[in-house]
Amino acid sequence: MIVVMAPNAKSEHTDSVINRLKKEGFEVHLSQGVSRTIIGIIGDKTRLTGLALEAMSSVEKVVPILRPFKLAGRDFKPEDSTVEVTPDVKFGGKKIHVIAGPCAVEGENQLMEIAKEVKASGATLLRGGAFKPRTSPYSFQGMEEEGLKILAAARQETGLPIVTEVMDVRNIPLVARYADLLQVGARNMQNFFLLKELGRIQKPILLKRGASATIEEWILAAEYIMSEGNHNVILCERGIRTFETYTRNTLDLSAVPAAKNLSHLPVVVDPSHGTGKWSLVAPMARAAIAAGADGLMIETHCRPEEALSDGQQSLTPENFSETMKQMQDLASVMGREL
Amino acid sequence: MIVVMAPNAKSEHTDSVINRLKKEGFEVHLSQGVSRTIIGIIGDKTRLTGLALEAMSSVEKVVPILRPFKLAGRDFKPEDSTVEVTPDVKFGGKKIHVIAGPCAVEGENQLMEIAKEVKASGATLLRGGAFKPRTSPYSFQGMEEEGLKILAAARQETGLPIVTEVMDVRNIPLVARYADLLQVGARNMQNFFLLKELGRIQKPILLKRGASATIEEWILAAEYIMSEGNHNVILCERGIRTFETYTRNTLDLSAVPAAKNLSHLPVVVDPSHGTGKWSLVAPMARAAIAAGADGLMIETHCRPEEALSDGQQSLTPENFSETMKQMQDLASVMGREL
Amino acid sequence: MIVVMAPNAKSEHTDSVINRLKKEGFEVHLSQGVSRTIIGIIGDKTRLTGLALEAMSSVEKVVPILRPFKLAGRDFKPEDSTVEVTPDVKFGGKKIHVIAGPCAVEGENQLMEIAKEVKASGATLLRGGAFKPRTSPYSFQGMEEEGLKILAAARQETGLPIVTEVMDVRNIPLVARYADLLQVGARNMQNFFLLKELGRIQKPILLKRGASATIEEWILAAEYIMSEGNHNVILCERGIRTFETYTRNTLDLSAVPAAKNLSHLPVVVDPSHGTGKWSLVAPMARAAIAAGADGLMIETHCRPEEALSDGQQSLTPENFSETMKQMQDLASVMGREL
Amino acid sequence: MIVVMAPNAKSEHTDSVINRLKKEGFEVHLSQGVSRTIIGIIGDKTRLTGLALEAMSSVEKVVPILRPFKLAGRDFKPEDSTVEVTPDVKFGGKKIHVIAGPCAVEGENQLMEIAKEVKASGATLLRGGAFKPRTSPYSFQGMEEEGLKILAAARQETGLPIVTEVMDVRNIPLVARYADLLQVGARNMQNFFLLKELGRIQKPILLKRGASATIEEWILAAEYIMSEGNHNVILCERGIRTFETYTRNTLDLSAVPAAKNLSHLPVVVDPSHGTGKWSLVAPMARAAIAAGADGLMIETHCRPEEALSDGQQSLTPENFSETMKQMQDLASVMGREL
Repeated sequence: MIVVMAPNAKSEHTDSVINRLKKEGFEVHLSQGVSRTIIGIIGDKTRLTGLALEAMSSVEKVVPILRPFKLAGRDFKPEDSTVEVTPDVKFGGKKIHVIAGPCAVEGENQLMEIAKEVKASGATLLRGGAFKPRTSPYSFQGMEEEGLKILAAARQETGLPIVTEVMDVRNIPLVARYADLLQVGARNMQNFFLLKELGRIQKPILLKRGASATIEEWILAAEYIMSEGNHNVILCERGIRTFETYTRNTLDLSAVPAAKNLSHLPVVVDPSHGTGKWSLVAPMARAAIAAGADGLMIETHCRPEEALSDGQQSLTPENFSETMKQMQDLASVMGREL
Repeated sequence: MIVVMAPNAKSEHTDSVINRLKKEGFEVHLSQGVSRTIIGIIGDKTRLTGLALEAMSSVEKVVPILRPFKLAGRDFKPEDSTVEVTPDVKFGGKKIHVIAGPCAVEGENQLMEIAKEVKASGATLLRGGAFKPRTSPYSFQGMEEEGLKILAAARQETGLPIVTEVMDVRNIPLVARYADLLQVGARNMQNFFLLKELGRIQKPILLKRGASATIEEWILAAEYIMSEGNHNVILCERGIRTFETYTRNTLDLSAVPAAKNLSHLPVVVDPSHGTGKWSLVAPMARAAIAAGADGLMIETHCRPEEALSDGQQSLTPENFSETMKQMQDLASVMGREL
Repeated sequence: MIVVMAPNAKSEHTDSVINRLKKEGFEVHLSQGVSRTIIGIIGDKTRLTGLALEAMSSVEKVVPILRPFKLAGRDFKPEDSTVEVTPDVKFGGKKIHVIAGPCAVEGENQLMEIAKEVKASGATLLRGGAFKPRTSPYSFQGMEEEGLKILAAARQETGLPIVTEVMDVRNIPLVARYADLLQVGARNMQNFFLLKELGRIQKPILLKRGASATIEEWILAAEYIMSEGNHNVILCERGIRTFETYTRNTLDLSAVPAAKNLSHLPVVVDPSHGTGKWSLVAPMARAAIAAGADGLMIETHCRPEEALSDGQQSLTPENFSETMKQMQDLASVMGREL
Repeated sequence: MIVVMAPNAKSEHTDSVINRLKKEGFEVHLSQGVSRTIIGIIGDKTRLTGLALEAMSSVEKVVPILRPFKLAGRDFKPEDSTVEVTPDVKFGGKKIHVIAGPCAVEGENQLMEIAKEVKASGATLLRGGAFKPRTSPYSFQGMEEEGLKILAAARQETGLPIVTEVMDVRNIPLVARYADLLQVGARNMQNFFLLKELGRIQKPILLKRGASATIEEWILAAEYIMSEGNHNVILCERGIRTFETYTRNTLDLSAVPAAKNLSHLPVVVDPSHGTGKWSLVAPMARAAIAAGADGLMIETHCRPEEALSDGQQSLTPENFSETMKQMQDLASVMGREL
């Protein structure tokens, strides 16, 4: 971290910054420029975040130099991590995994039907929401535990491990009892109490990027989980909020190689929420593979026009099957399998 | 709500949309334009959100006409609401209330000292965070219940009602036991489980706008609380995330008159988080008054440079006192009191 | 277009909107809902933009239904357009074209050396900036006409048609004398005088998307050029401005299929400006192919660390050659050539 | 400027950065941290922008320390500047000036009528657009020179100096012949050819902030004009583009004190474009005064519902007069005049 002093800062102000840093155990490095004095700080950066250096007299700004994460960072662990969901399903290796299924579990027949379809097309995990609090309190809110039971039944039938969202700290034990991979939704990416509790279980976590979170903040949210002991975190890019209104979100595919530069964790892409339009899902799914994603999460529904949630962004089984074929061909060019 | 059919939509597709709507109990209104057929829908809009009309064949887009909220909306209740925190402290009337105090409760001496200072300058509520999960897991995380006790002691001493954030559904009973006004932070604005639980208590709620929430989504979050029975909601604008990096957030003061156009709820402004720089707090606090805000929330600290959180955006007692005087003069020109 | 009247709008206000529209020659369609009256407007939408209906009494909002473009729109011309730069270089067909070369022309040796390299790797057009006004007035501003002459010499030597930016209406004749494809930069996307003048020449235009332009505004800028008679417009996505700071811009690859849904024009992607980091260029170039782009624009430099502009986002000849191979393999899976 | 080397950078890479800087005449300052080597650079920063240090091997990032402007910066000139439009109209002093008038000049009667109204209410400058290229090529494009003549006639009649936009370098002599203050629109804020030419005339310039420009880039655009010799620049905040759709733009009032921290130039606010809704203009105009603005620009029209451009954001003479009274009272509390 570097402290830039204001032009014409009095020397006692500079001294007082230096003294404070030394008292806290940091080594400092003074650099006198033509119009600014700069103080370099050497030591454990994570201890610095509590110091409000910017509130000290004559401090113009404080410039971070190092990334603020450790466990999730490439500096800490240069080689790629793999995260195991089941012995057969590991994210981060040669195999690209596709998570498919409806936005919400709506009933046993609905889920079973789509589960068989996506399995037949090559999906390796089944998704479905059991808790669905949505922007409006008047929308369908999910089947709750009944939905989890239906997911488990579909796993029983198809062998596909199941992925579902947990939104409430109180529900972690319940959801963890059923799910193989627990999803943290975009709105909860900085729900730090939830992150900490998930750090204390040993199930793998699929961490969606918040709609207004930088890549660095997203990895820092992974750090929250990891710092409690659970290192099984998979990152999931699902679009950020921008001024564009044609798409529901702006899917930031550069976040795939960027997150992989900064972190060793696997990265998955959700083109369904990322675009909000089913006709854009296939091209963005293909692009995600080409950008180096370790997995895809794709909403599918046998009758999207009857879906209780997000039908406009769901693929039919036919479209999903077609998209899978395109992705398989691309994966093979990329030296991977799908 | 209006459904726009694609150009050259087959008539059976149009019919199938119409039939679906009629089956759901809506009246429809067909309008045949030069290049598009448009279907107007008449009936209770809140029941429409579950229908994925955009997933039906030949539907080009679905355009909402009405605002998605009821209880929080001006249509429902044209006159301004007032929200009572204590018999002496009501938001939404002639009196503009100022909530002041440190970002985090750091100890009894720290809080007591600043509490007396802000009271002397005219603040009518005291703030202080007891639970402080922050972007980095390595930052100070708050004093928890001990912090709540210190807040209560400061209320005892000064008579100021206290405002503090609740982040975890499990802590609602604890926080509600101590606080007079419970704050929902920006990161939790769409934590729907938390909102619902807060709708079931009768304490007033200060609902911060999420960093990437539209004004409409913010009011819809209020609707979540209100739809469970608690109508005592105060909205708080605290800046949105934009591309600008000079300020921590972009304080959207137009959200004050805009939210008041759409809703009858009182609106408070937090220029400390909204700018992230103490030197911008006074001008933005004044501007909030001039824009019609019903209250201000201002971080203050006796020694900002020693603050464990957000020192760079905290006012000293002297700066706070000066800012209060400026606001009082402006409030009086606006026909209000402070 | 649809006019939504305020709740409880007086009937004389509604009548006065209807009368105004009828006087302007539109047919109207009245729909009386439970809480709102809605007026549908039938007729030529482009004539409506001048009417400030939102300023009339009791008008709550005006909702557009049709896209605001004609010549550039799919409705007007359903099949894909191809834009010919030279008889051998046509954008929009099976062949994907790659435009490569340095950000700025810095000298004859520099350009000739890189031109031969990119040709050898398969690029089919050569880029290079001759006019380089940049964010700071103190940065290198380009070689101007001298730069254009060097570009022409490189074309002579390699046979590659040349692409260069025109920024000033006064320079159009000069630039058009040398260039085969004229680029409109992101900052000039809404420089309407420039667009109109470019509509009056018959050279093809590469129209970059503005950093804060919606996809619709981008296509409307193409409409500006086309409405003057020049239909040879190629769209170029180059990243939009968002809150993310790790990348220079956020490359919006969903804009490729989205623009193709709305328009028949070819779409090219610039991953160099789109990311601002050379290490992200190859993955984003691959992803652009997979998303369906008709071309790529990639900054290349023999010695990026000595480049006078944008070296940090330029590929070396070796990296470019490697990226080309990856793109060729992907193009072939996509049923295209490169 | 500071160069941060990658972890484990080879010493020859560090040496090669140092040698390059020394060769360019900079003094360097090496700081060896626990996990990173940092190179501080001392010397004239403006000469650094051409060096693509980020493209050199093992360079992780380059961090700017100083602001990139000189002439426009507070460092260069600590006291506030005043910009004289006429001997009676100076921006930046005690007097707050209000620029009022229609978006577009539509005819002599229209302009004369509104000019007299705004003068009677206390406006001190008259605005009106003569060149109006707009987002759609099918909208009204302005009266051009005929409009300028009408503006001059209104000045003759009322004594109000006139403000109008110049969009095309070729029109600068024409517009400068009529206008007292030349406006650069938001879309042209980075039209560097236009800025440079305006730097060579001696008329004052009103420089609007681009919809996606940071405060720093806005001041750098002023630097462009000033570096050519014209120091008479007034900054104008008019809203930035964000995800919010209720308002046309998000008016960033914190940009007023922020720009004044960084620069000595006067700052004006345009709440009409900043909000896009006439009902939000008065509260935002008041807030601008309270935030410390040196002037306001407010669209007014005698019959907004008949305006050929931007009627929905224009005030009637009655609303304008009322808003002026509120602003006068606030200005007086702020120790200023209006």
